[in-house]
Amino acid sequence: MQSHRVTIKDIARELGVSPSTVSRAMKDHPDISPDTKKLVNDLVEKLKYRPNALALSLRSRKTNLIALVVPEIVHHFFSSVISGIEEVAQEAGYHVMIFQSNESYEREMAIAESLTSIPIDGLLVSIAKTSRKFGHFRDLMNQGIPLVFFDRASEEIDTDKVIVDDFTGAYNAVEYLIRTGCKRIAHFGAPQHLQIGYQRKRGYISALEKHGIEPVEDLMIKCDSLAEALELTPGIMRLDKPPDAIFAVNDLTASGAMKVLKQLRYRIPDEVSVIGFTDGLVASIIDPGLTSVSQHGFEMGKRAMSMLLQRMDVLEEDVPARTDIIPTELIVRESTRALPGS
Amino acid sequence: MQSHRVTIKDIARELGVSPSTVSRAMKDHPDISPDTKKLVNDLVEKLKYRPNALALSLRSRKTNLIALVVPEIVHHFFSSVISGIEEVAQEAGYHVMIFQSNESYEREMAIAESLTSIPIDGLLVSIAKTSRKFGHFRDLMNQGIPLVFFDRASEEIDTDKVIVDDFTGAYNAVEYLIRTGCKRIAHFGAPQHLQIGYQRKRGYISALEKHGIEPVEDLMIKCDSLAEALELTPGIMRLDKPPDAIFAVNDLTASGAMKVLKQLRYRIPDEVSVIGFTDGLVASIIDPGLTSVSQHGFEMGKRAMSMLLQRMDVLEEDVPARTDIIPTELIVRESTRALPGS
Repeated sequence: MQSHRVTIKDIARELGVSPSTVSRAMKDHPDISPDTKKLVNDLVEKLKYRPNALALSLRSRKTNLIALVVPEIVHHFFSSVISGIEEVAQEAGYHVMIFQSNESYEREMAIAESLTSIPIDGLLVSIAKTSRKFGHFRDLMNQGIPLVFFDRASEEIDTDKVIVDDFTGAYNAVEYLIRTGCKRIAHFGAPQHLQIGYQRKRGYISALEKHGIEPVEDLMIKCDSLAEALELTPGIMRLDKPPDAIFAVNDLTASGAMKVLKQLRYRIPDEVSVIGFTDGLVASIIDPGLTSVSQHGFEMGKRAMSMLLQRMDVLEEDVPARTDIIPTELIVRESTRALPGS
Repeated sequence: MQSHRVTIKDIARELGVSPSTVSRAMKDHPDISPDTKKLVNDLVEKLKYRPNALALSLRSRKTNLIALVVPEIVHHFFSSVISGIEEVAQEAGYHVMIFQSNESYEREMAIAESLTSIPIDGLLVSIAKTSRKFGHFRDLMNQGIPLVFFDRASEEIDTDKVIVDDFTGAYNAVEYLIRTGCKRIAHFGAPQHLQIGYQRKRGYISALEKHGIEPVEDLMIKCDSLAEALELTPGIMRLDKPPDAIFAVNDLTASGAMKVLKQLRYRIPDEVSVIGFTDGLVASIIDPGLTSVSQHGFEMGKRAMSMLLQRMDVLEEDVPARTDIIPTELIVRESTRALPGS
């Protein structure tokens, strides 16, 4: 058996400090006291610890450039995340270059490939819907580039992640509808192979079951765009027992449902309540205003960039990967009824 | 007097071919016939023509990376432009990296500075509102990087440009309102130091005057955001002679005006017609649908990228800069009345 290679963690454990402190002490960081630096450096010498040479050599070519790979920037959620990322990046003196994968695995790979020729200090990624393999991102990590996933993460790659609590967001939205008196709640959902589709539907079903309402197959449809909502809402309202509420997987789908409901002369929210998910611009400009689950995209972007800054400050091999979960919040507007007694 | 330095144009003129043909012949491009290549190379030798050495050396390090600097990607118009740029770039095998200036001159300069350390093949820019100096972009051009401006261009830099015909777009919108019977048309405009603010107001005034309607100061206000429209629309409707139409400088402002008009129980379009400018997502999701001036952002993006590809194919010093003007189009929806007889 090969002997255990000394890592930063061993040194940190021995001295009772964090790996980040060890890393910074070795880099002569001003935040670390001279005493600690001496302790660290003596032990480094004694244990003959050598940091990953490649990582250090790449790290030393500091460019202040961060690459960001997102499925598409048109989506309001991603543009909020980007604003959050840029706020933190700018404060820390970094520039963010944005690449769009357009939900294509091939483009994502090609972008990762071209990133090998650009000197970047770090990488933020939300993966494309069609990506099932992630070697292209692992290659960049192996070159010593710190990587943080946000919103859509790969389970295969062990690195820092910031994700949204979709399940609880959906659960709370549907529970709110139930508490305002809705009994037949439809769900306009996304494809189930996507985490957001799966988790939001799971939250919807859990809330129904918790309140003793049997989920009805006819009321759960795949419908996750404006165009589909315009096409499918009339049919669901023609059911023998039409819904008295619609929980849509995103705001645009909810806005399409509302447009149809108004054309069919349903009163919103009295006859049919509607809730979306995103809480983007759409939610506040449509009439009536749309109750929606806020994903706090801006906050997610700030956290992802903060995690990346920390990761760039220590050697990634030596600190375990973390996962941050961003809570959601139900923003109540006029498309849902008031809670009893409020 | 110094003798005239031989340029690609001289060679092209002498042979009766285009400068682009000369450039490609010198690079042994497969589209150029062997005969032409021989003619070009013989003359190049005879005239001792030497292309700009710096430009050629930088050009030869082909990275297939294009840098794009935009004020903000959240804006629907810019995200359409970006889609057009990416469509053409992708077909030609280029990747687009996007930087946001957030309308800040300082950030724009810092981005340009960091671009000097990235090997890019070309640059597309829409300048920030606050930029009054452009030396940072001239520096990049002097490094041999071809530059195309789109939407917001600097008059100071002699390079290719793609711009929108804002004047005619506004003129046609206001003329349409007049032809549908509107007589007191208000304009919610942008600051006049911005080209879009200035040109759209100029188009508005020209259309009124052409039809013998005197422009009224009270009906022309600075109001170019959703929030401002919510705040200022009630006041303008309380005038002794309130408007029977509103022409807004963008869709979001128009949507805010419509929200207020509906709250005040005005019938749209019978009592008050509304026209926006952008023709983004907002125009089709609000109720009634918003008549709006389409800027053809997608088309603009495609043209800008095509111009850049052409520019990368020839030496920029040798072909005069061009300006492409994208026509606008009035997309009629339900927020305006029908034309008489239609």
